[in-house]
Formats: sequence, structure tokens, C-alpha cells
Amino acid sequence: LASLSARALAGIPEIRPGDDLAGAIARAAGPGGLRPGQVIAIAHTVVSKAEGAIVSLATVEPSSRAVELGLQQVKDPRIVQVALDQSAEILRAERGVLISRTRHGFVCANAGVDSSNAAEADQVIVLPADPDASARALRARLAALAGLAASEAPAVLITDSFGRAWRHGQTDVAIGLAGMAPLDDWRGRADANGLLLQATWLAVADAAAGAADLARAKDSAEPVVLIEGLERFVSADDGPGALALLRPAAEDLFGS
Amino acid sequence: LASLSARALAGIPEIRPGDDLAGAIARAAGPGGLRPGQVIAIAHTVVSKAEGAIVSLATVEPSSRAVELGLQQVKDPRIVQVALDQSAEILRAERGVLISRTRHGFVCANAGVDSSNAAEADQVIVLPADPDASARALRARLAALAGLAASEAPAVLITDSFGRAWRHGQTDVAIGLAGMAPLDDWRGRADANGLLLQATWLAVADAAAGAADLARAKDSAEPVVLIEGLERFVSADDGPGALALLRPAAEDLFGS
Repeated sequence: LASLSARALAGIPEIRPGDDLAGAIARAAGPGGLRPGQVIAIAHTVVSKAEGAIVSLATVEPSSRAVELGLQQVKDPRIVQVALDQSAEILRAERGVLISRTRHGFVCANAGVDSSNAAEADQVIVLPADPDASARALRARLAALAGLAASEAPAVLITDSFGRAWRHGQTDVAIGLAGMAPLDDWRGRADANGLLLQATWLAVADAAAGAADLARAKDSAEPVVLIEGLERFVSADDGPGALALLRPAAEDLFGS
Repeated sequence: LASLSARALAGIPEIRPGDDLAGAIARAAGPGGLRPGQVIAIAHTVVSKAEGAIVSLATVEPSSRAVELGLQQVKDPRIVQVALDQSAEILRAERGVLISRTRHGFVCANAGVDSSNAAEADQVIVLPADPDASARALRARLAALAGLAASEAPAVLITDSFGRAWRHGQTDVAIGLAGMAPLDDWRGRADANGLLLQATWLAVADAAAGAADLARAKDSAEPVVLIEGLERFVSADDGPGALALLRPAAEDLFGS
């Protein structure tokens, strides 16, 4: 029988630019704490902080477009400018939210710019430049620190909280991934009754991101969650990453 | 520290119209297996089957609109007719999929009509008529069977797999809920650094539905998953139900 467990790691310190995040995770997990088959879910904010993906608002010169959008949406024009810099395209600006397609291709509010988790009040955190590359690098370094072969490394899943179409609230989704299948494809396979599961194509990395978020209290500074029970989705190689979850706009049925 | 665990219940038999689903769950959980604070996630297919929310395609007369849509989308016009009957509105018909707003208000593919999990090949399963009412009834009966006071009953979460805007694959979401908060609202509350978490409004019932789906193998007939570690979201009363997760179309930013 399958079963799933997720627990937040205690003892991850405040992460600053240049800090060794993988080292902090390995220390917090303790000897033998990182094992093959695990999925290590990491809130993107600490990955961004370690990589220096932080913008000081004092350094931002808002363009006239940012000023206009800021007035319209009652937002700090400097934060709007950072969101514009992070975006390939603004899909909507409404109700104080910019819905953006980021340079990576993620569709989310305010291009993922986070003004609530920064260490200082005039800073904002942006998404990592290449979250799949961040996940691959963390996975390799965690394997080395745990004394595991690269092919036995735990999977690394970098998460962010995204709003959704048609439903209130946010859920965590995968924005970076290494060592785990993002999708589990049952299309054309049979179910327990031998009937075809025609439409079943499960976004397992997004579900795992959501599960990880339930294993931490939002106010308790627990950015890293160890998940066990997903061994069937963990791979020896890095795999296609979280970008494989993105549906091209031309194929989108629910949004656009 | 928070932690989450989810395990599929073995021993749920094939459910037929009129079967006592709560009784089957209580028997499968065993003595003492159902406890206060748990969330019992149930794939809607078995709730629909128990309630007789099944349509024999032989009894369906497709309308001219269903025939036309069926030709256009290469779908059985009788299945299209069932989807139309379940819908308040068809938002799009494209790539072989009808995107529908169901009579309940859920936006999903083919109005949730499921042609892959029925017991017989010419049957389709539709969503329960009122999934929140189904959840409330199951919760009350499970409490009675477990010898618990109504206020100590485990929560009941009825799930379905929905496609999403902008991203490939499906994730499980809450379509019926009793005894659990659907959303966890941090807007205006402070994070670990004392900064306001302005946009944080977490769809915890949807995340729990996703976690439950990771605890079962899709081909293994495990419709019921027990989740522990969500006690902080479990309530003494039935609460607002899953309909509270629906965002009115006028407020939607990502779809529409």
C-alpha cells in the first residue's frame, strides 16, 4: 500500500545571499537524514535568498508604465517595476494584481515578486533565474554531502504559492525540479477494472508541493520539508524539470 | 513541528448504488481507526456510485446540440449530452474537451463526467448532486459508527481530479467538504519576521486533496485515504464546505 509522509526540517537558519543552502539542509537533516527516494521540497524564497535574487527597492527607478500601473492598481510603482522586469508578458492588471507570464513561462500573480518574506522591509524577493538549474545544483550538492551517488540523490522540488483560475486561495506548485517525474501519465493505461483511464495525467510534482506546504506552519520559518512515499516518482537522473509542467498558451483550455 | 501523513485504506469493496459507504470505510479502518482530527479523503467516484449518480448511456437521447458538439469534438454524443445535463454553462469546446461550469459551480473538463471508473462499460459516473451535503452526511454517519460525538467527527473531504489553467496535468481538488476549513487565511497576519503576509490565503482543502491522491496508486482501487497532521484545520462543526472555494466569475483573474 502506498503512503505518504511529510515533515518540516527544524533548524534551517535565516538564509542570506551566498549562504550554502544545501549545507544548511544537510546539517538540519542530520546524519543519515537524507536518503535515496526522498523528495526534498524547498520554498523558493530561501533558494532565491541564497542566490541573491533579492531587489532593494531603493535601487529601482520605476518606468512611466510602472508608475501608471501602480496608480491604477494601488501598488508601489517600484514593486510594479520589479514585476515588469521579471515578466515576459502582463496578461491582466486588475484588482491590485498583475497576472504575469514570467520570463521562465510561469503564469502567476505579480511575476512571483514576494514582498513579505524578505529579511528587510525595503527588499523584495524574486524567483530564481533558472529554478530547474537551482534544483539540479542543490540535488548534486545534497548527494555529495550525504555521501550518496548522484543516481541515488534525493529529488529536489522548489515550490511557490500560485493563485488558480476559478478557485479562491493559493496552492503550492513546482517551479523547479530535479530527480522526480513532474507528471504521471496514465493516459492509455488501464485502471483496476481494466478500463482505460483516458484523461488521467497527474501533476504529481504540483501535488507534492501542496503536500509539503501542509507540513509546515506558515509563520514558523520552515522552508524545507522532507517527503517520503514518492519513491515511484523519483528518478536516477535529473529528469525534465518543472518547466515540463507548463502548458503552452496555444494549448491552454482553462485560462487565456 | 507540523507533519503530515496520508495512507490509503485497504479493503474498500466495489461500491454499488445504495451501498453503505460510511460502513465500508469504518470497517476498513478497523476498531479505533477513525479518530478526531483526521481528514478522510474520498474519491468522488465511490460517493457517486453509492448515491446512484451513474448514467446508463443506453438511456440517453442526445439532443441536436450534443450531436453537433460530439461531431465537432469527436466524442460520443450521449456522453456530451450527460455533460450538458450536468452543466450550467459550457465555457469552451476545444481539443476534444468541453470546459464546463457545472450546476454546482465547479469549472472542469466535461462537467466531471467520468467514463473510466464505472463498473460497466456503457455507464458513466457523474458528480454527486450536492457534494457538501454528501460530505456532511458521511461525516455524521462515520462519527456514529466510530462512537464519536458529532463535534469530534473526523473531517470528510470528497475529491476529484481537475485540469488547471496554464499547466499540464490534473491535480485533485476538494469538491465536497465537512468538518474542515477550506481556506487558511493569513492575509493581514504576520510571518516569522513580523512582516505582513499580504497575499497568503491558502486553499488547504485542495492541497489535502492533492496529498491524498499521492497516497494511492491510481490502478489499485483505493478510493479512501486517511490524513493525519491537519488537526489545526479540522473543526467541530461542518463548516462552509467546498463551495466556499469557488471564485465567482466576476472576480476571476486567471481564467475567464
